[in-house]
Amino acid sequence: MEVPPPLVLKRPLYVPSKTLMGPGPSNCSHRVLEAMSNPVLGHMHPECLQIMDEVKEGIKYIFQTLNDATMCISGAGHAGMEASLCNLIEDGDVVLLGVTGVWGHRAADMARRYGADVRYVEASFGRALSQEEIKFAFETHRPRVFFVAQGDSSTGIIQQNIRELGELCRQFDCFLVVDTVASLGGTEFLMDEWKVDVVYTGSQKSLGGPAGLTPISFSKRALTHIKQRKSKPKVYYFDILLIGQYWGCYGTPRIYHHTISSTLLYGLREALAHFCAVGLKAVVRRHQECSRRLQLGIEELGLEMFVQREDERLPTVNTIKVPFGVDWKKVAEYAMRKYSVEISGGLGPTVEHVFRIGLMGENATVERVDMVLSILHEAIQSIKLRAVKAERSKI
Amino acid sequence: MEVPPPLVLKRPLYVPSKTLMGPGPSNCSHRVLEAMSNPVLGHMHPECLQIMDEVKEGIKYIFQTLNDATMCISGAGHAGMEASLCNLIEDGDVVLLGVTGVWGHRAADMARRYGADVRYVEASFGRALSQEEIKFAFETHRPRVFFVAQGDSSTGIIQQNIRELGELCRQFDCFLVVDTVASLGGTEFLMDEWKVDVVYTGSQKSLGGPAGLTPISFSKRALTHIKQRKSKPKVYYFDILLIGQYWGCYGTPRIYHHTISSTLLYGLREALAHFCAVGLKAVVRRHQECSRRLQLGIEELGLEMFVQREDERLPTVNTIKVPFGVDWKKVAEYAMRKYSVEISGGLGPTVEHVFRIGLMGENATVERVDMVLSILHEAIQSIKLRAVKAERSKI
Repeated sequence: MEVPPPLVLKRPLYVPSKTLMGPGPSNCSHRVLEAMSNPVLGHMHPECLQIMDEVKEGIKYIFQTLNDATMCISGAGHAGMEASLCNLIEDGDVVLLGVTGVWGHRAADMARRYGADVRYVEASFGRALSQEEIKFAFETHRPRVFFVAQGDSSTGIIQQNIRELGELCRQFDCFLVVDTVASLGGTEFLMDEWKVDVVYTGSQKSLGGPAGLTPISFSKRALTHIKQRKSKPKVYYFDILLIGQYWGCYGTPRIYHHTISSTLLYGLREALAHFCAVGLKAVVRRHQECSRRLQLGIEELGLEMFVQREDERLPTVNTIKVPFGVDWKKVAEYAMRKYSVEISGGLGPTVEHVFRIGLMGENATVERVDMVLSILHEAIQSIKLRAVKAERSKI
Repeated sequence: MEVPPPLVLKRPLYVPSKTLMGPGPSNCSHRVLEAMSNPVLGHMHPECLQIMDEVKEGIKYIFQTLNDATMCISGAGHAGMEASLCNLIEDGDVVLLGVTGVWGHRAADMARRYGADVRYVEASFGRALSQEEIKFAFETHRPRVFFVAQGDSSTGIIQQNIRELGELCRQFDCFLVVDTVASLGGTEFLMDEWKVDVVYTGSQKSLGGPAGLTPISFSKRALTHIKQRKSKPKVYYFDILLIGQYWGCYGTPRIYHHTISSTLLYGLREALAHFCAVGLKAVVRRHQECSRRLQLGIEELGLEMFVQREDERLPTVNTIKVPFGVDWKKVAEYAMRKYSVEISGGLGPTVEHVFRIGLMGENATVERVDMVLSILHEAIQSIKLRAVKAERSKI
């Protein structure tokens, strides 16, 4: 029996234009989008390797690191999480997961599959982890690897004490893995100064690049440990010694590891170039100012932020309590239908409790903040009105 | 100490236009390249899910399968190899690798990391594996999983007996994994009819899509086995039950697994649409005609194909013996410098022994064949002449 060619592929490709103000991806600039229609290059061509070198330098800057082992994983942000854990963990290692939302649990799922002995330190609902909570967990579990998200996009919580965690990990001879997928660009992050062992971030959030390539960096200390592993990392595709060789990180000849997407490299290169031109501090300042403006507006609308403490609020992914009696889904649908603007619902522990509004990259501007505030207000009022009318029609 | 923004990112992006006639990536059409400058979509937006559905239908067609578990892995072709093995293998499983070039060894490296008991069946140099060789290996090793590349791009060998291997695997209660990264579009492949359990292919070869998304399909039989595993697959990112849920393969609600690159989806969708419009049989015929024309031309130039038997030659990646006394690298450099045409050297066992000429997708045309033949001839003559002159100047 022959499988016929599908009819759907006879129709033209349909891609609407939207303003992506959910937890990510955020919109790419024209510069980034245009770059991606450039002709493809071979994965070992000198011009491709040159772009990889440029991307590498850009990543060192955004992480504020001089680490040789700085590169990209060819995959989504989740692949960055995999690569971090896969390279560090050996069978039976105690891995401690900091939990302020869904990402600690996601990392636990991965770590367990790699043979880790998984332990948790969980924050109170809607709170960041305190230094005391973490220290107590370290004393109890004596972990080999500690994972924490600097920003948890499911709850909108920021973990401000990464510097102190770097110190703590050195005291306990533990490796510190920090997920900055949602936080980078929205808050300070100093990999070397804070003694972070592994960090990765999302390309499609504040950076404004395409999804699909994940910047990552390993400290010298982590790299030394990986070189001395008793067994090879469990996944060839995530083996940082091999990927780093391809990326020219170790001063050895570049050896083919996989076929990188030159298209995504172009996009990420241009996103990094823009980010670097603006400058890290200015980018962070803009994201924080936008978030403050949003928070003030939310208050003025009589709404409430989900994260109680101001200094624990992530500036990039902002979580707002869904008002009592309002269906978040209808609000999001209204914003999308009428304005092609994405306002997102919660994830994991915040499902149905919050709206998530992303102010990242292209969308971290005063104009976008004011726009999304007025749309959110209009949408909520409209949904409330509809509910009242429906109620009345019953009487 | 502050890490300053890198100077290299102040320069504009440089991407030269080349004709990619190595083992891949091949050139993308304008249709594909233009599609990739479309605005990004969220990974759960209905329009994105719709494109995923269209891609899924296209993949079913190119593999000639009705399998529900048909989707893409968000990663390079190597990630397809990982996903195949990761989902099938449990600790201690005997995995038999068919070796006709480097890919069997690469798969072995992966399988070993997943805890497999790895065995090999190796073809004679420059030959495909015979049914007898494989059957003997099955009787000796009684494998749980058998891996073979339909086309090995390092040697240019095609494995013609996939149908018979499907039968053999059923007899021995073994799962058949076929790598069609380099072969699909250049030769017949009938997943369901041949009883193949897992297949994946490259997006950036005959398909003419961008690198970075890897089409894959699992048979019902493989899926049932995976659902009954004693342990979870070792990698969350490659867990086909979770990825398939996101791709809407199992009739269950779509659940977020990772952020897919909408950019790459657009490109792959357009590549598949073109492939489907031309039709599988016409695509295969064109690739085979081009390869035959190349082979005739090679003979006329007094050169020799690396694979002796005509019926064991892969039409997509053609391997040609480097003539005695000629430096392949200088030939490739000549072609690139003067014509911006990629002619590649060998890989693994064929390094320094062969040229590899890819006739895939956009480059599988009579015009390109004639062009690459004349460039190859000119380049070899020029390098030979230079060598003679250098020799004379010594006298």
